[in-house]
Amino acid sequence: MNYPKTILNLIECFKKFPGIGEKTAERMALSTLEMEEDNLNLFSKSLKEIKTKIKTCSKCGSLTEDDECEICKDKSRDHSIICVVEECKNVILFEKIGSFKGIYHVLGGLISPLEGINPEDIKINELIKRIEKEKIKEVILAIKPSVEGETTALYIRKMLEGKDVTVSKIAHGIPMGAEIDYIDPLTLEMAIEDRRQVS
Amino acid sequence: MNYPKTILNLIECFKKFPGIGEKTAERMALSTLEMEEDNLNLFSKSLKEIKTKIKTCSKCGSLTEDDECEICKDKSRDHSIICVVEECKNVILFEKIGSFKGIYHVLGGLISPLEGINPEDIKINELIKRIEKEKIKEVILAIKPSVEGETTALYIRKMLEGKDVTVSKIAHGIPMGAEIDYIDPLTLEMAIEDRRQVS
Repeated sequence: MNYPKTILNLIECFKKFPGIGEKTAERMALSTLEMEEDNLNLFSKSLKEIKTKIKTCSKCGSLTEDDECEICKDKSRDHSIICVVEECKNVILFEKIGSFKGIYHVLGGLISPLEGINPEDIKINELIKRIEKEKIKEVILAIKPSVEGETTALYIRKMLEGKDVTVSKIAHGIPMGAEIDYIDPLTLEMAIEDRRQVS
Repeated sequence: MNYPKTILNLIECFKKFPGIGEKTAERMALSTLEMEEDNLNLFSKSLKEIKTKIKTCSKCGSLTEDDECEICKDKSRDHSIICVVEECKNVILFEKIGSFKGIYHVLGGLISPLEGINPEDIKINELIKRIEKEKIKEVILAIKPSVEGETTALYIRKMLEGKDVTVSKIAHGIPMGAEIDYIDPLTLEMAIEDRRQVS
């Protein structure tokens, strides 16, 4: 004997998520039996609607339920500074800090020849077009410092060469509260490179 | 700005699962966006149906979509040997091994005075009634060797004292393939206690 069909289906569904194995999927499926009806209904409804309701903003590529996201619609923000990020969730992360008042551009990936991701597979052309059309003054590259991140940043910088726009990148260095002893050499090297005059 | 409502709802739903924190819930909610429509529909449907379709077997307490589970309905099994387990998933575990051909009884918990779980909160009375009514010859206690497990096993043995039924417990000892050096003292003690004559 095995679990009834409905539970087996749930286990299979949970296993489709990244990082969820057989045992965790089984535990999650079984724990739905103890959840409140209202919660399960909301869960079920949200899953059904996710594909139809959630779109990517036609301007920046963030997640939204409308044609344009709240940030792009917000006239009080500085529409001349654009922060370039890899994924939608990076936008939410920056928004949680709340100090950046410009707009965003979500690439939807990074250039990776190894994985066969070329510049045309991510939204670089869209970025270049926006910079020209929307009269952007500064582009902040907020991309992770990996091989793919550096390649993507370099490519964008090349594409913007000669254009009337400042390109900057977020600082890489020692995280706040970290012990310098435990920082890897590459981060230390970047921290020295990105040093800032203080007096 | 934060995520659109549907995504926030999904994050909240995922956070209700044991062991799923904010970050994992966020990752899981976002990964639904990349899933196939069919898969999401099956997921949504299964969640909606789980409470109504899944029942506990009226005899043994296993999960089933009928009144009685497949095991209790199976006439080819030995209905005189009953294996007592804590949870429904233990039944599936034993069934995967496939060597046990008797029937089961799911307690639905273990006695735990600390957590306020008393004998009447789990299906012990139901077990005693079944043993009397179904002419059970042997009761195998397959309960984990924790304080709660031992208390529950002891309580069941007390309740069955004087009744015409053999009570046994599964052996606790060294797991197959384990190095004896790394086994904890309690397990070693149990392994000696549960020793078996071989010649």
